[in-house]
Amino acid sequence: MDCCVVIKSAKPYAVEQRNVKMGDDVVIGRKEDSSMGIFLHSKGFLVTKSDAEEFAFRTSRTRETSYSMDYDSLYDLLKYEKDNGYIVWVLGPAVAFDFDSRKAMQKLIENGYVQHIFAGNALATHDLEAGYMKTALGQNIYTQESVHNGHYHHLQTINDVQDCGSIKKFIEKNDIDNGIMYAMEKENIGYVLAGSIRDDGPLPGVIADVYEAQMKMRKIISGATTVIGLATQLHTIATGNMAPSYVLKDGIVRPVNFYTVDITEFAVNKLRDRGSLAVKSIVTNVQDFLVHIKHGLDLK
Amino acid sequence: MDCCVVIKSAKPYAVEQRNVKMGDDVVIGRKEDSSMGIFLHSKGFLVTKSDAEEFAFRTSRTRETSYSMDYDSLYDLLKYEKDNGYIVWVLGPAVAFDFDSRKAMQKLIENGYVQHIFAGNALATHDLEAGYMKTALGQNIYTQESVHNGHYHHLQTINDVQDCGSIKKFIEKNDIDNGIMYAMEKENIGYVLAGSIRDDGPLPGVIADVYEAQMKMRKIISGATTVIGLATQLHTIATGNMAPSYVLKDGIVRPVNFYTVDITEFAVNKLRDRGSLAVKSIVTNVQDFLVHIKHGLDLK
Amino acid sequence: MDCCVVIKSAKPYAVEQRNVKMGDDVVIGRKEDSSMGIFLHSKGFLVTKSDAEEFAFRTSRTRETSYSMDYDSLYDLLKYEKDNGYIVWVLGPAVAFDFDSRKAMQKLIENGYVQHIFAGNALATHDLEAGYMKTALGQNIYTQESVHNGHYHHLQTINDVQDCGSIKKFIEKNDIDNGIMYAMEKENIGYVLAGSIRDDGPLPGVIADVYEAQMKMRKIISGATTVIGLATQLHTIATGNMAPSYVLKDGIVRPVNFYTVDITEFAVNKLRDRGSLAVKSIVTNVQDFLVHIKHGLDLK
Amino acid sequence: MDCCVVIKSAKPYAVEQRNVKMGDDVVIGRKEDSSMGIFLHSKGFLVTKSDAEEFAFRTSRTRETSYSMDYDSLYDLLKYEKDNGYIVWVLGPAVAFDFDSRKAMQKLIENGYVQHIFAGNALATHDLEAGYMKTALGQNIYTQESVHNGHYHHLQTINDVQDCGSIKKFIEKNDIDNGIMYAMEKENIGYVLAGSIRDDGPLPGVIADVYEAQMKMRKIISGATTVIGLATQLHTIATGNMAPSYVLKDGIVRPVNFYTVDITEFAVNKLRDRGSLAVKSIVTNVQDFLVHIKHGLDLK
Repeated sequence: MDCCVVIKSAKPYAVEQRNVKMGDDVVIGRKEDSSMGIFLHSKGFLVTKSDAEEFAFRTSRTRETSYSMDYDSLYDLLKYEKDNGYIVWVLGPAVAFDFDSRKAMQKLIENGYVQHIFAGNALATHDLEAGYMKTALGQNIYTQESVHNGHYHHLQTINDVQDCGSIKKFIEKNDIDNGIMYAMEKENIGYVLAGSIRDDGPLPGVIADVYEAQMKMRKIISGATTVIGLATQLHTIATGNMAPSYVLKDGIVRPVNFYTVDITEFAVNKLRDRGSLAVKSIVTNVQDFLVHIKHGLDLK
Repeated sequence: MDCCVVIKSAKPYAVEQRNVKMGDDVVIGRKEDSSMGIFLHSKGFLVTKSDAEEFAFRTSRTRETSYSMDYDSLYDLLKYEKDNGYIVWVLGPAVAFDFDSRKAMQKLIENGYVQHIFAGNALATHDLEAGYMKTALGQNIYTQESVHNGHYHHLQTINDVQDCGSIKKFIEKNDIDNGIMYAMEKENIGYVLAGSIRDDGPLPGVIADVYEAQMKMRKIISGATTVIGLATQLHTIATGNMAPSYVLKDGIVRPVNFYTVDITEFAVNKLRDRGSLAVKSIVTNVQDFLVHIKHGLDLK
Repeated sequence: MDCCVVIKSAKPYAVEQRNVKMGDDVVIGRKEDSSMGIFLHSKGFLVTKSDAEEFAFRTSRTRETSYSMDYDSLYDLLKYEKDNGYIVWVLGPAVAFDFDSRKAMQKLIENGYVQHIFAGNALATHDLEAGYMKTALGQNIYTQESVHNGHYHHLQTINDVQDCGSIKKFIEKNDIDNGIMYAMEKENIGYVLAGSIRDDGPLPGVIADVYEAQMKMRKIISGATTVIGLATQLHTIATGNMAPSYVLKDGIVRPVNFYTVDITEFAVNKLRDRGSLAVKSIVTNVQDFLVHIKHGLDLK
Repeated sequence: MDCCVVIKSAKPYAVEQRNVKMGDDVVIGRKEDSSMGIFLHSKGFLVTKSDAEEFAFRTSRTRETSYSMDYDSLYDLLKYEKDNGYIVWVLGPAVAFDFDSRKAMQKLIENGYVQHIFAGNALATHDLEAGYMKTALGQNIYTQESVHNGHYHHLQTINDVQDCGSIKKFIEKNDIDNGIMYAMEKENIGYVLAGSIRDDGPLPGVIADVYEAQMKMRKIISGATTVIGLATQLHTIATGNMAPSYVLKDGIVRPVNFYTVDITEFAVNKLRDRGSLAVKSIVTNVQDFLVHIKHGLDLK
């Protein structure tokens, strides 16, 4: 979304402004109706729905929307995409705070439903603390007990990963056998951990330069067919801004399926309000969302 | 909570102010420390926990709290209470808006996990519209499609129930074979439908006088051992205000288990802020909560 | 909204279903396009705006919407309506919790900006407790201090009003000289206090039967030209359901100006989602809203 | 908060882990009770309050808290701090979306109530777009109109600032005479603009490396006496993590006054949940908050 269209060798490319070079051929028409050479055909691939009546209830997506069919469709989609697509998950730290949702995410990775993950320093740190000491920010991720000196667990985890030199080596050295980062390393799944000013540490592997992180994310996302953003406005909107609406996959133009799950209407709708039109939003706690997905895909 | 203590035949009773009669012996001491004859022993039945440290993270219950253990405990509790307790559910209309959560609620009733329901006109109307015409407020509860003339479904349902004279007769006459009200009538479970100024209709059986509704609710709640409030501030706080903290059940003093589930921290915490101290809150969409409970209890 | 159209003496009237009598001539066509005798001309009085572009940011009203002009328009509107309209305010209890907002509301009443108020038992009780004992639910409304035995203030206020027989007599007897109810009684402004199952007490004057309360509200609202709902989903949606879109005032058809102010997008948008299309929503804390209005109208 | 204590020349310094050097003397005791050489005297400077009763209403800070006195205290504080302290404002982009709040912020800067600002690329971009083209993300910041081709305004602003080489030169070249960045440059106030993965552009001056941004923020914040965070979880929590609880100012130990203003309880409470104990939170829309402050300080 936040790019210019640059023509190279008669083909259009979306290029970030800061990467446009002098001499590039940039498309500059500013009408949607082809009068300046551009026609915005945003609904070209949509099957038309019959027009709604003027007076109708419940036209927006809120906590009161019925999500049963969305879940069922998502199970089907994930099963298909597993073999025929490329699924990118965008994870907020809350995913690692809860025992069951962390486990569900691990199972999704181990069963081939995850091709790439975007997240920040906190997701990785909380997840590793959970594998290392059974807590996240000092609170047991199952019993909710605040452990004595628990607030040190967070820092100790970061220090010990630093000491090992990488997340991979830390997992091996400490025989960690569960969690999101564990499954990622085991299955050799790629991830981008983008830094933020809220980070402490950071862990090795976290990208300090946000525009470098953007470039890595953009490269990955341009090949994605499904994107699922969970409980992170920062990373989900960043991803939404750089995700294409359609991709060419195996010779076929397909829409990119973009889901955003958050507990507030504001967060899930903000992406739409920033111009990402084709997002499907679900308003719920991501813990429950992930456990549902695990059930629906029958992962043990 | 909102009552006086009246002594009758040497035993204390909680009586609403408007039902206190001239000549009643009302307890009037206003100190908690026994200096005026009353000792507030609010933690008498609690197992003491070791004191927390001064510096700790994550001390409140929010969307980021790990609820895994709460779910597991609740499964155990419900299995025990089914045979040894009295479970009252307090339902907001959102429970009937979603196909899966409506079905989960039906299964809970059919399998003995519900002894009484408190709700309003909307819950019953949406549920009956779903059984009658597959929609709630005109939107298909599975496909989310807004049906042609769907906004009439709501009124037509109310009119046709009125025509039958009762919810029970409407269900029989129209061979409705699914939903919350269907299961209630089939299993002969009691319910209180309290009216509100937002109601249209109302359905037959809805109580127009809110203080009469309160009295019916209070009578029921004084025998409850578990209360679960879902997505309704109005009915849940009303119930919380009248629920006792402890009940005498089979000769044993037991705490009343009070759960409140809502998608906002404000709603679940408000009950606590109004003085109901022992509430366990879960911040999520009640649709997902109910489907979880159905899975956790292995209901088909 | 929740009514039938009944023809009496060749004129149409909106009548609640439960008040339709056998033999009434009810309009029953179910098409919007006049093919069954009815034409839905919902935009008849709107000045047409030029069509928006397909790609645009920020199309919904959220916490990030710029409300500066809405405030300025509202000042102008209120000044006009004061002399040429009928302004109904719908108040949630939060209006009385804060010292400055309670005072702003008092000033609005005293200066002619309020023709009628809809509220519940809580608004009146908190306001009277504040005038009587400087607290609301036991907390000082200015200093936020929780006063010793403050939780009794609420009940004592109710008891003492009951003892006086009416709110008016309680105010006189106790020389209360500030607050919302004080100003209402002094200026002889009408109000509807609708009961709910959350009430304790209730105060004298609160209507126990919700459908009786609806009828009183409907009678008032049919003559309103501006409605402002503050921090109450229950009362605001109830009012929205019964408010007409247009009124005939001094021989001219004018739209009814309907504002809803709440701190969550969900609450302000829910009215729209229930079919009340012409609502103008502002997402903020009503305390600040009211103090703004007081400043904007230059009330001392 | 996220630092080690390192002893240099017999004085303690808070040092981020990644800046600890081999050979540094790090304080490592993990008890709060002095048994390992450390005594946590967190309430040393507090005036003790009498203990609260066990049963009390309204103990948390929510949308229903009375903020009248907080506003009055804040006016006094700002007047004092203007001459005797160092006030750091942490701004989310919403501050620039609204005409009146943007103007209020400008007035605060021009009148000496701002010593430093922390923000991101978006705040600066929206503010400059407003000064340049009267819109923010293409929407007029006063009339709310979506301007034709408005979505280009954002990019054009960034491009033109880039072209000028700096924000300062862009303001001069285009004779921009209003807004936050305008006032900052005119009054020669310092600011830190920290980059994030959501940025487009970015503007010149935005710091791409988040840990470099942290260092600049930490250096500034260690001298702050008042911090006010508005509508930004990311920047406010980052600042809260690095702000000290007490500072030595003119030979006197004083607490750091930390305010956080946001429209959700979750956002304002999260800082507290992450261990920043002394934060004063206000739940409202920051637009209204800023206009209040402007009124309260009598800024024209």
